[in-house]
Amino acid sequence: MSKNDKRYSVVIAGGGSTFTPGFVLSLIANEDRFPLRKLKFYDNDADRQKKIGDACAIIMKERAPEIEFSYTTDPEEAFTDVDFVMGSIRVGKYEMRDHDEKIPLKYGVNGQETTGPGGMAYGLRSIPAIIQIIDWMEKYSPNAWMINYSNTIAIVAEACRRFRPNSRVINICDMPVAIMTRMAQICGLNDYHDLDVNYYGLNHFGWWKEVRDKNTGKDLTPLLKEHLSKNGYWIGGEFDKDTEESWAETFKKAKDCFALDPEALPNTYLQYYYYPQYEVSNADPNHTRTDEIREYREKLVFEECARIVKAGTAKGNLWEASVEHSNYIVDICHAIAYNTHEKFFANIANNGAISNIDPDSIVEVPCWFGSDGVQAMATGEAGVFERGMIMEQQTCEKLVVDAYEQKSYTKMWQAFALNKTVPDALVAKKILDDMIPVNKPYWPELK
Amino acid sequence: MSKNDKRYSVVIAGGGSTFTPGFVLSLIANEDRFPLRKLKFYDNDADRQKKIGDACAIIMKERAPEIEFSYTTDPEEAFTDVDFVMGSIRVGKYEMRDHDEKIPLKYGVNGQETTGPGGMAYGLRSIPAIIQIIDWMEKYSPNAWMINYSNTIAIVAEACRRFRPNSRVINICDMPVAIMTRMAQICGLNDYHDLDVNYYGLNHFGWWKEVRDKNTGKDLTPLLKEHLSKNGYWIGGEFDKDTEESWAETFKKAKDCFALDPEALPNTYLQYYYYPQYEVSNADPNHTRTDEIREYREKLVFEECARIVKAGTAKGNLWEASVEHSNYIVDICHAIAYNTHEKFFANIANNGAISNIDPDSIVEVPCWFGSDGVQAMATGEAGVFERGMIMEQQTCEKLVVDAYEQKSYTKMWQAFALNKTVPDALVAKKILDDMIPVNKPYWPELK
Repeated sequence: MSKNDKRYSVVIAGGGSTFTPGFVLSLIANEDRFPLRKLKFYDNDADRQKKIGDACAIIMKERAPEIEFSYTTDPEEAFTDVDFVMGSIRVGKYEMRDHDEKIPLKYGVNGQETTGPGGMAYGLRSIPAIIQIIDWMEKYSPNAWMINYSNTIAIVAEACRRFRPNSRVINICDMPVAIMTRMAQICGLNDYHDLDVNYYGLNHFGWWKEVRDKNTGKDLTPLLKEHLSKNGYWIGGEFDKDTEESWAETFKKAKDCFALDPEALPNTYLQYYYYPQYEVSNADPNHTRTDEIREYREKLVFEECARIVKAGTAKGNLWEASVEHSNYIVDICHAIAYNTHEKFFANIANNGAISNIDPDSIVEVPCWFGSDGVQAMATGEAGVFERGMIMEQQTCEKLVVDAYEQKSYTKMWQAFALNKTVPDALVAKKILDDMIPVNKPYWPELK
Repeated sequence: MSKNDKRYSVVIAGGGSTFTPGFVLSLIANEDRFPLRKLKFYDNDADRQKKIGDACAIIMKERAPEIEFSYTTDPEEAFTDVDFVMGSIRVGKYEMRDHDEKIPLKYGVNGQETTGPGGMAYGLRSIPAIIQIIDWMEKYSPNAWMINYSNTIAIVAEACRRFRPNSRVINICDMPVAIMTRMAQICGLNDYHDLDVNYYGLNHFGWWKEVRDKNTGKDLTPLLKEHLSKNGYWIGGEFDKDTEESWAETFKKAKDCFALDPEALPNTYLQYYYYPQYEVSNADPNHTRTDEIREYREKLVFEECARIVKAGTAKGNLWEASVEHSNYIVDICHAIAYNTHEKFFANIANNGAISNIDPDSIVEVPCWFGSDGVQAMATGEAGVFERGMIMEQQTCEKLVVDAYEQKSYTKMWQAFALNKTVPDALVAKKILDDMIPVNKPYWPELK
């Protein structure tokens, strides 16, 4: 079945995440290429994890009884005898995401979980928690790999680079491949597996220089530029029939991002930096994405888990239809487990991957994935405009980690003030001053 | 009298400037250290220059009859047999400055002559005019030096670096020394001549790392930080009794700039980038600095010139009291003429002067001034925050020159959109689209 007959042990850190059941089904669906012997959940919120864990226990028993399954809040139990740690945590959960979104909006600034002050606040919360997980992994399973997709990934990756430079952590994000699936569709192909690309930038802040058909080598960039200039990444029809309204807006808005910078194909998140006023004017400061998720996805997932537990069976469950999100993570585990040297994206120290960006900066670029980790591909030069954008944003990300390291109020204020989404240092200060008390359980005390 | 008995020939390009009479008096006052044989004015606006020139002819006849004086609109006449060209032009005059200030304000963006979209618009107008003057100088007086202080100096300097890399042009600005005179006063000294400093950044966008007493070597930085944290650069009392209200605000606001970045002493212009909303809320979109100047300084200067011409004497004229602004330029001419190797500021290609900024970027740093031009002093590293700010602003300045070179609408739009003073790319586009028709006589046609 597998190339080396080895079966792997995986722990999901953040077992109580609403994404966990879908990921579990994806792991099961991919057992032929990434076989498991053990699957564990770890979370520091026992109640929340129990709800997800009890439903997943039923899923596992029905679909993959050969895999030993458990969940725990004990780090030693969780991180002992594992090959892969999945980093899927949200420090402060949706209660804090709510603050990340609503405090900036109060002052007319974007409220988005990974962008602007909200993203920086979230990043500052994540740093100590991720470092703790790395340390547990290294203590209890020193040969394991951590595949981390806990946001704000650019800030977390910078913290890893500084504080745990030799750790086996790979910081990834699936947004580029979500867009690439749209690109593939636009070009009459199926999904990101069909494309070979040159992409560069920061997390949620990058550009495709070139997109090719992976099989034929044909350059698809002109076709994609043509589509972008008219429709953004919107496809419509059958493909988009279930796309939520806010995501539909996001994919369409890529048209305006492309207008400002027609040299490259933008990551959709750039709209928050290019057109913050549009984003703010489209937002309801009293009802943000968090509310949508709490009212819809969270409700749906926990109700479905409760239903499964009550029914004692996971037959016909919610997640069977679509496992796209998690497939990408399985792709990456597979590449590391079997040393396939496939090309995926990672957030790593630049070291020349973007030739005119600091070597010691975290960048998001295509990398070669194998059993020894990742090696960045050289992507060439950033354009003049893109480089200016990157340098500003990257400095914000570094300043957040400086703020963490030095417990510095000033550094965090500077990070907010410098950010392209924040129009004024006084506004930055007001946002920061509102964020400090609510983040008290998670942030270092900033002086 | 002078060290080498040579007397110099100077042409003021922009003879019709309201600053010209003051500068003429300064030249006369400094004849002992910078003796002249000839003084010419050049302007492309014959009427405006005549008004200034006829008054200056009387001043010259009364005070320095040994210096041959004339004014002309003929480039050959102006630039033949000169040792120094003073670049003091304002392309489009106050009519265009009015647009530079009021168009951005219409969209809630800073309207300032050298900052943000207004500054970039002004810079784009200046490029071809400055290059034309350089070419005339090189044709008619190939051994002359041009001391250029025509704004937007950062953009003009970048254009010189790219298009006339070997020309004898030194791009300067007197704002740092104006602030340094305040610093000297705060420390109980007289003026900028009494200080030795480490300063770095871009034009109107820099920081003092260290300020010392030039005679004793004593570090005055702590004392200045103490003063800044309470009063900004405001001194008050006798020293500030004639300071205009808008400048008083500017010097006081430096306190808030220092709060955001207490590692270094800020150039006052940073307030436009740190606190753009404050600047906008303090501005009257229908009555800006241009109006103040037209109603006050321009009126005053032209009335005074008319009075002098009518009276046939310059006795007791307006400019005798204060020649501070122009003294700095005489300092620089003197240093070049007599190879003194004094330290002043210039805007030049970085080449490591700021160690972590691109070598080919224009920076404003202390330089060694001598008969072979200027040599930059190494200033060390920019701080993390300052560097992020510099990289963003410097990219805007480069994009303006790209727009000029490529006649590119997109590059100019990107320059506006990237700028810290502009909150949104759509706002940037609206400002640009309003600026294009009024700048038609001066800008390349942007496609």
